[in-house]
Amino acid sequence: MLMIPGPTAVPEAALLASAKHPIGHRTREFSEIMEEVIQNLKWLHQTENDVLMVTGSGTAAMEAAMINFLSSGDRILVGCNGKFGNRWAEVGKIFGLNVETITSPWGKPLDTETFYKKLHADTNKQIKAVIITHNETSTGVVNDLETINHSVKAQGQALIIVDAVTSLGAMNVPVDSWGLDVVVSASQKGYMVPPGLGFVAVSPKAWEAYKTAKLPKFYLDLDKYRQFTTQNTTPFTPPVNLIMALQASLRMMKREGLASVFARHQRLMDATRAGIKALNLNLFAEDECASPAITAVAPSNIDVERIRALMSKRFDIALAGGQNHLKGQILRIGHLGFVCDRDIITCIAALEAVLPELGWNNFTPGAGVAAVWATLK
Amino acid sequence: MLMIPGPTAVPEAALLASAKHPIGHRTREFSEIMEEVIQNLKWLHQTENDVLMVTGSGTAAMEAAMINFLSSGDRILVGCNGKFGNRWAEVGKIFGLNVETITSPWGKPLDTETFYKKLHADTNKQIKAVIITHNETSTGVVNDLETINHSVKAQGQALIIVDAVTSLGAMNVPVDSWGLDVVVSASQKGYMVPPGLGFVAVSPKAWEAYKTAKLPKFYLDLDKYRQFTTQNTTPFTPPVNLIMALQASLRMMKREGLASVFARHQRLMDATRAGIKALNLNLFAEDECASPAITAVAPSNIDVERIRALMSKRFDIALAGGQNHLKGQILRIGHLGFVCDRDIITCIAALEAVLPELGWNNFTPGAGVAAVWATLK
Repeated sequence: MLMIPGPTAVPEAALLASAKHPIGHRTREFSEIMEEVIQNLKWLHQTENDVLMVTGSGTAAMEAAMINFLSSGDRILVGCNGKFGNRWAEVGKIFGLNVETITSPWGKPLDTETFYKKLHADTNKQIKAVIITHNETSTGVVNDLETINHSVKAQGQALIIVDAVTSLGAMNVPVDSWGLDVVVSASQKGYMVPPGLGFVAVSPKAWEAYKTAKLPKFYLDLDKYRQFTTQNTTPFTPPVNLIMALQASLRMMKREGLASVFARHQRLMDATRAGIKALNLNLFAEDECASPAITAVAPSNIDVERIRALMSKRFDIALAGGQNHLKGQILRIGHLGFVCDRDIITCIAALEAVLPELGWNNFTPGAGVAAVWATLK
Repeated sequence: MLMIPGPTAVPEAALLASAKHPIGHRTREFSEIMEEVIQNLKWLHQTENDVLMVTGSGTAAMEAAMINFLSSGDRILVGCNGKFGNRWAEVGKIFGLNVETITSPWGKPLDTETFYKKLHADTNKQIKAVIITHNETSTGVVNDLETINHSVKAQGQALIIVDAVTSLGAMNVPVDSWGLDVVVSASQKGYMVPPGLGFVAVSPKAWEAYKTAKLPKFYLDLDKYRQFTTQNTTPFTPPVNLIMALQASLRMMKREGLASVFARHQRLMDATRAGIKALNLNLFAEDECASPAITAVAPSNIDVERIRALMSKRFDIALAGGQNHLKGQILRIGHLGFVCDRDIITCIAALEAVLPELGWNNFTPGAGVAAVWATLK
């Protein structure tokens, strides 16, 4: 039972679709699948922009989002309050961008005021892009993309590039109404599909920037993907089986409806946080910036790695640990994608069972599950 | 029934493995799969070199093979006698390499003498790499890699970079005994796995070149893959389901044995060519450079697209067409990977059935199948 922030659980319909025999990617049959998938990707992104599929990890999509629209020396602002924000900054530096990081401690949201000041002060429009990790997977913190984006729009020149890897499909990312220029995501998260596909949504303003962007690119040259996508195919051999799985999962999401998908994630977050609080464990992120996709828990006086090991051994439940300096400090409960009420009850009930064995008795037996249920019913 | 040069047919064991529920990629369970897969990849490559897995199309692996070991301005020789050779040249130019193409007409093998002369004349060792497409997928021509490689070794400095996308797993590619520095392949070909994984084998000499190579790279930075592979994991989220499929298919290949795998492909090539000859259709490649993976057929006076359409409509057999200027000129029969005698008999028998309908009666009914069978028995 996977309760990590990716790969996430995959519904049977998607798994079975992925187990179909591959079909040729230059066939009418495949193009029909592509046509439906692309339409549904636009629906999920709430956009009329191009949504392109890249065969690769989410990191491939991140790199594509940067190298297609920027040139060496371009000044960019990158929000860094966790592992993935830092990765954006690292990629930018490697490609010779003039990266200015705006940091907050891991577990705290980015300070919107700092972005406002930097962008407001940039009267000669030197800032070419602002990169925000919408939902920081490493900490379970949601950054206030909407507010930061207001400052970007006020500056008027910079592209807003969004890492929506663990927000898309879990919370509202209205690409068109917010005017998000480049939005990156990956299959093994809210999409409920095995890993191997990255997605990049590209606005007309970003395509304008593409025309003057000078970094060399071939495999990740998004203009190739755009050209082939208009013909419902791909420039290079795509992972046809994953795309068949994606077709199945997007159909499920459409049946559920976007508002319901988001409400379900909010509900799962509320239930998880209520359960953790009732077990008297510390939540790593404040309520105001809590993620509907991932809840990070920072237990005091208990070795989180022992919790993870015992959860795995006793109940075959996989929780994620902390990354980088948070290793051993936090555990992370993924509740994005194919997750339901039962999964949260199960997870909290299992935690109740293992915590006393690790010396944590600072809660009333049953209190965690009761709190979950009180939130859910 | 897929008889195209990729995606190729996938055995049930691999399909079912790919349909298992994803597992976390930072788990002991996944590392155990990785350990076995990496060992078996080395077995398949006949090498002790690193064999790295990249999430992406074969083109991602091609780009990685170039940008990790070369710098802008480096002089390289690229053999071009088909679409994929041309792609290597195109990628090199985009990344600012000083690309010298050595061309042969599509359907003819590269001229080994030209490589010998260029390399022999290069006394001050300006040529940094020679790139050869071992089996040109677009034409069904095998290039004489072994002979060209002798000239590379005599020059002593240049890396030999090999596109083995449709040769690895279909014909002998002895990486260590030939001293091949960088060898590129992809999952949807001889590996009998759905598309989505690329492979790059890297020699110690290539790693030396890596140290001074200056092109910027992040997602395709192979040193990251090397570091994580030593710990039986990956730098970025891998397509765990495809890797589970790969585990199954590599086990099948090991059971069959390398020599048997190669002999089977040779046998399938011989049978296919005998059948085509008996139907009095022209083979596009000469016997001397014929590919054990793909047979291209150049019928005179028959529209190949009509053959493909009728084969698909009547028998649900997918054949590939020509690419670029060969579109409409040739059809390509893929017989690599999970292909057996029965498939060749089926394909030639079906051709016998559809050709007269398209006005081609220039063969004795039954002659194709008889010739196939005479070769196979």
